[in-house]
Amino acid sequence: MLDEAALKIAQQRLLAVYDPQRFRAAAEQWGELLATHLERDQQRETRVLNWAEPAANIAEAERWLDGVSTNPAAHFPDIVRQMLDRGHNLHHPRYIGHQVPAPVPIAGLFDAVGSVTNQVMAIYEMGPWATAVERALVNRLGEQIGWQRDSFAGLVTHGGSLGNLTGLLTARNVALGGSWEEGVAGGAGVPRRAPVIIVQGDAHYSVARAAGVIGLGTKQVLRAALDERRKLDPQKLDEQLTELIAQGQRVVAVSACACATPIGAFDPLRDVAAVCRTHGVWMHVDAAHGGAALFSRRYRHLLDGVDQADSVVWDAHKMMFMPALCAFVFYRDKRHRFETFRQEAPYLFDPSAPGMAEYDSGMLTLECTKRAAAYGLWGTWSLFGQQLFEDLVDVTFDLGRVFYEKLLATEDFVPLHEPECNIVAFRHVPAAMKSAPPETLGAFQRELRRRLIESGRFYIVQTNHGGVGALRVTIINPLTTADDLDELLVTLRELGVELLKSDRP
Amino acid sequence: MLDEAALKIAQQRLLAVYDPQRFRAAAEQWGELLATHLERDQQRETRVLNWAEPAANIAEAERWLDGVSTNPAAHFPDIVRQMLDRGHNLHHPRYIGHQVPAPVPIAGLFDAVGSVTNQVMAIYEMGPWATAVERALVNRLGEQIGWQRDSFAGLVTHGGSLGNLTGLLTARNVALGGSWEEGVAGGAGVPRRAPVIIVQGDAHYSVARAAGVIGLGTKQVLRAALDERRKLDPQKLDEQLTELIAQGQRVVAVSACACATPIGAFDPLRDVAAVCRTHGVWMHVDAAHGGAALFSRRYRHLLDGVDQADSVVWDAHKMMFMPALCAFVFYRDKRHRFETFRQEAPYLFDPSAPGMAEYDSGMLTLECTKRAAAYGLWGTWSLFGQQLFEDLVDVTFDLGRVFYEKLLATEDFVPLHEPECNIVAFRHVPAAMKSAPPETLGAFQRELRRRLIESGRFYIVQTNHGGVGALRVTIINPLTTADDLDELLVTLRELGVELLKSDRP
Repeated sequence: MLDEAALKIAQQRLLAVYDPQRFRAAAEQWGELLATHLERDQQRETRVLNWAEPAANIAEAERWLDGVSTNPAAHFPDIVRQMLDRGHNLHHPRYIGHQVPAPVPIAGLFDAVGSVTNQVMAIYEMGPWATAVERALVNRLGEQIGWQRDSFAGLVTHGGSLGNLTGLLTARNVALGGSWEEGVAGGAGVPRRAPVIIVQGDAHYSVARAAGVIGLGTKQVLRAALDERRKLDPQKLDEQLTELIAQGQRVVAVSACACATPIGAFDPLRDVAAVCRTHGVWMHVDAAHGGAALFSRRYRHLLDGVDQADSVVWDAHKMMFMPALCAFVFYRDKRHRFETFRQEAPYLFDPSAPGMAEYDSGMLTLECTKRAAAYGLWGTWSLFGQQLFEDLVDVTFDLGRVFYEKLLATEDFVPLHEPECNIVAFRHVPAAMKSAPPETLGAFQRELRRRLIESGRFYIVQTNHGGVGALRVTIINPLTTADDLDELLVTLRELGVELLKSDRP
Repeated sequence: MLDEAALKIAQQRLLAVYDPQRFRAAAEQWGELLATHLERDQQRETRVLNWAEPAANIAEAERWLDGVSTNPAAHFPDIVRQMLDRGHNLHHPRYIGHQVPAPVPIAGLFDAVGSVTNQVMAIYEMGPWATAVERALVNRLGEQIGWQRDSFAGLVTHGGSLGNLTGLLTARNVALGGSWEEGVAGGAGVPRRAPVIIVQGDAHYSVARAAGVIGLGTKQVLRAALDERRKLDPQKLDEQLTELIAQGQRVVAVSACACATPIGAFDPLRDVAAVCRTHGVWMHVDAAHGGAALFSRRYRHLLDGVDQADSVVWDAHKMMFMPALCAFVFYRDKRHRFETFRQEAPYLFDPSAPGMAEYDSGMLTLECTKRAAAYGLWGTWSLFGQQLFEDLVDVTFDLGRVFYEKLLATEDFVPLHEPECNIVAFRHVPAAMKSAPPETLGAFQRELRRRLIESGRFYIVQTNHGGVGALRVTIINPLTTADDLDELLVTLRELGVELLKSDRP
């Protein structure tokens, strides 16, 4: 039974942990540590990536779990410093790597209002303001797409991969009536041609993965043909659909990109949409990266026709420069919003207030409890206004062009495409590599990159182009300057010389 | 082409937004606002839930998006205040509602180190410390389950619903070889009996929903029989499995609970495991809520046998009192960790460092980019030590018992079960309701609750028991006292009298 004395002692210990005064003191130290860290990043005084081998880092992380101090007030800043010293410095102007931004720093404060106070959704009453903020932003972003208020629907989920999964699950349920209840096998056991999904040839892996998750099978993913700029070819798509449908094949969806990740190619959405409409096939657009270009008067033409899609994914944690994760999913026709899932949890969805289900996020998203993932975006937008998002797109897309021109002006760097946005793929081809076989050239790029990132001087990524390894940057940091881009080339040359002198490769 | 003057002007505007000095000033205001808010919550000076109708809240949230100030420094605290004034105050001691805790406040600061600096995973090199922290915690929690280091595997995902989906997807791929690639329809088109999943009769809706998502179909979800304490009955499960298998039915998994949500019933896991093993069926345990009891010497017996499960979900954002979301998924046999997905994204998974894929979170989780969701837990554990988690379980589980005894001591409240943890379902049955028909009694509970939560005096939830509406509390706030629980009964009586006087129900 109850040990009341023990209960009282434990309660006292917990009161100390929850003491607002302790929080106040820690928050003050926290703000100062973070601000100083951001200053050092911006001044290029830190390493970009603090590289350490996984086993060493894991052992270190475990060591701290055992390191309880008798003086938590003094220990708190040590722990924060450890996190900062071992992390990846996305605010360093020489971080130009994955499609994960150096976020607006103050966005993290708005986000953390939700974390400290634990604002969540699932049902409206659990997070009335979290829900309202999300809906307000769904309204605004949907209008940017070009839709009329109240005709479309949308939601926020934890990342573009979940966004693609959500959109394609909805497409599956619409295309294959009964698959939610009966399963993809079709209940009655009647054999039929297994349905397919058609995806842009360069689509993110999460699209094909979604086919595996939702029971269609990854072998049922057909690649759409691309043109020489690696854009989806509407003419060939039309032929492909015509042939499949003539064979009696069910097509669940066509998934297009705005843009695809390897070289940032934007598909011709208006033409793709016309083809999909002709054949009565659901059109999904993965605009995780490029959606924000809709805010730019100069770049929004890249998304022309996106308003014709049936479902659209748009990550605020990419080109709207929010901290991860805040991904939007939209349906052109709001009637599709309840097709994704078709259930009720009676203890969640209140029969005494049935109209409220319209505002229960759990009806629309894979998550039940969902964090207030849009707090960062709502606060940032309210503070700085919409112009900020146009600036972020314009500056980083422009710098993509600047970098491309720099590459063109050299003898020993080769851009692999003319960039449409802030993604540029290229290779370093010093004299010694001019006539190297493709495998050697590709391995050289990869080894060069590994040395570069482990040095902490820059962070860039790799890709394949024509089956051969290449380098790739995403300028997703508004602090990056043209001088930094010059310096990247200088550093790659320097490391290239070292690499060619060494045994490898 | 490029307009260099325009580019420069936009860059200047962005530098001002990213200015670390601006962040420093905002962070200082932020910490003070949050600390003051926590004080007011703890002093019971705030309303618990700030109720407002959805349409009003959404309109208000949109209004702020248009309210750009010419003086952002002055506007920042207004925005934060607005978020706090409109939110749900989980740190109010009279928040005793859903299974979402009043989190350790300082955990939000550790979490926000990740948000401000945007620490993410997918591949190890993007978040070396984020990955290390997650792995360190996977090691520790897996050992709490009772497993030997290096024999099991685990991951963090964005919530228990995704956790259940991940575990059951793995079970599907193991049970139905080829379903990942060929689809659940089975490629060859050979009809066969559609496979089933067996779930605890009171399981969270996400388990049945997972069957819809992964293509098995929600009609293929069979409910396992429960005993009179609403626990899974191992004897009846054995009979059910024997019969199904004799009919040639494939059983993908049995999903048990530790605990189920309606009354917090813990299934007899050791006996359930023995039955599953006899029939060669995958055993999944949804320990989202109860997993943390493993830290308590007094309550860990509730999870006896959890180490026999094939997959386990355990949410740190429930009974470890972390901010949402930080859900762990475990596999007893580490060889199952790559069964969930079977793909590669060449630009993500680096052939020049193939051993690194072992540490790439994207290989294991539905998310590609994943936030450093374990930062809060790692920092809190490092600061306060493991004792904190035992205290949190002991205090809140004990208070469940305290509340139950209070209910028993009244004439007009009826507990619906003897609680095993911090979840207690009950009804208020004043004299006028003693002989009311069930529908009237249930409607009375629901209306009572609605008035209670909209008043801002308490937050509790509702449930069904025997098909009749009931009240339910989860004591998931270490600041809640026995006096608060007394006051809950007083308040319910008061509102009950008002309600009986009014027309409704």
